[in-house]
Amino acid sequence: MREVFHQSLEDVQGRLVEIAELVTVAIDKATRAFGTSDVSLAEEVIEADAVIDDKAGELDELAIEILARQQPVARDLRIVVSALRMSASLERMGDIAEHIAQLTRMRFPERAIPKGLKSTFLKMGELDVEAARKLAELLRTQDGDLIDEIRNADDALDELHVSVFEKVLSDSWQGEASATVDATLASRYHERFGDHAVSVAKKVAYLSTGEWTAATDALDIVTVEQ
Amino acid sequence: MREVFHQSLEDVQGRLVEIAELVTVAIDKATRAFGTSDVSLAEEVIEADAVIDDKAGELDELAIEILARQQPVARDLRIVVSALRMSASLERMGDIAEHIAQLTRMRFPERAIPKGLKSTFLKMGELDVEAARKLAELLRTQDGDLIDEIRNADDALDELHVSVFEKVLSDSWQGEASATVDATLASRYHERFGDHAVSVAKKVAYLSTGEWTAATDALDIVTVEQ
Repeated sequence: MREVFHQSLEDVQGRLVEIAELVTVAIDKATRAFGTSDVSLAEEVIEADAVIDDKAGELDELAIEILARQQPVARDLRIVVSALRMSASLERMGDIAEHIAQLTRMRFPERAIPKGLKSTFLKMGELDVEAARKLAELLRTQDGDLIDEIRNADDALDELHVSVFEKVLSDSWQGEASATVDATLASRYHERFGDHAVSVAKKVAYLSTGEWTAATDALDIVTVEQ
Repeated sequence: MREVFHQSLEDVQGRLVEIAELVTVAIDKATRAFGTSDVSLAEEVIEADAVIDDKAGELDELAIEILARQQPVARDLRIVVSALRMSASLERMGDIAEHIAQLTRMRFPERAIPKGLKSTFLKMGELDVEAARKLAELLRTQDGDLIDEIRNADDALDELHVSVFEKVLSDSWQGEASATVDATLASRYHERFGDHAVSVAKKVAYLSTGEWTAATDALDIVTVEQ
């Protein structure tokens, strides 16, 4: 039974890695599309989100099947419940990539990336991709050093998120209302993407350390500065 | 065992109702604070969010304990997994109420509610409160008619969300960048609140009908129009 359970967990882990990799591709394409107003790339992201949703749904079904057939208890049970939550966060990260792609499509042929914030959003995009890529690696290797690296990327995202609002609310901001709206939404999406990456990473920490705390489990919501 | 399970489910249900009622109070206060720039009311919401988080955490622990001790299978198992997801959505609704309160506090003593959009945001606030109140009632009574009413409130919220962007992007919009930022974030929060209410309501539908579909379970993300 123990052997069966461990095989099942490996299956779960493999699927989490697969979804995280799909999310990495999605956020990479979405942020490149946003930066270059590439509407066809944006549309690829929008279409591919259904695949992420399906994979997350299949993972949920597998987790429920493990609960039903193998009846895990104690730490094993918490691992399976964690997998359900990681699946939900990864699915949400895919949605956020889709939202960034939608912003790009909506503004086309105009640029979605607001003037004066190009380098900021390029950097936010890079940090999102980095966080997603490291999350996939963390899920594959359970190398705990990656957790801090993902946190660092999220901290940098939070700082850039604040800087976007400082810029938009400064006297020097010349953007039209549409640029202000785009900057607000896009910055919020990037910031939330990082939050979800940290939320998943903390659950992986639990899997490797066995230390379960309320903080491990709670969806960590970085205070919205703006 | 069956009897014990049903008692446990009643406990779960009672806690879901309690959290939904706390969320109703939070969104009611948050939207009133936003409408009247009442910073002390906003602070009440911000402080009280920890209670919602704690209650959601306790409910999660109870659900995990039920899984461990009673080892439910089939539909019973799905009910418990659904409760975990409803708990996460309710907790997130509390966070959104807190975010609206934070917007109010940040702008104080200025008004957070953007000029020209007062009636729109008052209406969005009313719809959020209505959705939350009906959700609490739905969780208590499992009266399926309420599900459609919550959907209708969410549809109305989506329409108002689109109208906010139409207004902000129109030639007549005179708001400064800060008003544009506030309108964008506040509208997004209201819209997401409605999405989560529908997501929980659909899971209650499952509890009463026993019909489990991918759609019942997926976090329904209304396409972001802007």
